[in-house]
Amino acid sequence: MDRYDQEFMKKAIQLAKENVSSGKGGPFGAIVVKDGKIIAEAMNEVTCCDDPTAHAEMVAIRRACRELKTYQLTGCEIYSSCEPCPMCLGAIYWARPDRVYYAGTRKDAAASGFDDDFIYDEMELPPKDRKIPFINLMRNEAVEVFREWDDSEMKVNY
Amino acid sequence: MDRYDQEFMKKAIQLAKENVSSGKGGPFGAIVVKDGKIIAEAMNEVTCCDDPTAHAEMVAIRRACRELKTYQLTGCEIYSSCEPCPMCLGAIYWARPDRVYYAGTRKDAAASGFDDDFIYDEMELPPKDRKIPFINLMRNEAVEVFREWDDSEMKVNY
Repeated sequence: MDRYDQEFMKKAIQLAKENVSSGKGGPFGAIVVKDGKIIAEAMNEVTCCDDPTAHAEMVAIRRACRELKTYQLTGCEIYSSCEPCPMCLGAIYWARPDRVYYAGTRKDAAASGFDDDFIYDEMELPPKDRKIPFINLMRNEAVEVFREWDDSEMKVNY
Repeated sequence: MDRYDQEFMKKAIQLAKENVSSGKGGPFGAIVVKDGKIIAEAMNEVTCCDDPTAHAEMVAIRRACRELKTYQLTGCEIYSSCEPCPMCLGAIYWARPDRVYYAGTRKDAAASGFDDDFIYDEMELPPKDRKIPFINLMRNEAVEVFREWDDSEMKVNY
């Protein structure tokens, strides 16, 4: 951990803090850094914007991609005030930044009533046994669409 | 599986198919149903919209929430042409629909070059050992923000 990393993490934590004082949303902040510069910053916007996907990391990733006009964050780093939940972790893998720094952990989030840890546990259960049941049907029809994708000359891989 | 479910799933698969023929995005479609009616439908928009978070399920959830003016999908069902990736699974748990139906599986997606299965595997590794390293720093400062959240009278739980 160098001074540089600390300054960026301080900023992410500051955003989380401001979101609590303003009452706007959950206690989470995140920034995206490229070449030593902040290119996107975000706070949790779930309740203020009626969007359950608007976690700080998600909003920061979307803003950074808009800024860079790309769907990949190669060469970027994400600083998040808390360990990413499964949704945000998934988004990070799809965006492919170089690395992620986080401050609070999923256990810290759970201690304040957030479901992160619960969701990590649920993912390991067989789909149909989860608290929200996941039911499989019509697999063959879906596989046909994957074959059309494989054969498509217009596809853009991501 | 009743005829009803099949009709909705056919619609989700049809959206996936159209997205491949148009070349707009990945082979994925999803819809949100409430009281037997479709309230949101979506296709994968990652490459066309420079948004790595724009999977079909994510876009459908966000549209359904905008439609219902809420951040919770209680009483709703999601039909997805493919098993949700970790990002979408996380979003589903935060949105809390009653259940999820899916057609293709994560293995089918992997066979067409998608990272879903890889991300599920990566999540189980210790954060610092992942292909995208997750590095913990300044935890104590983040925990202070959770304490401010716990004590806040303005907070809206979600």
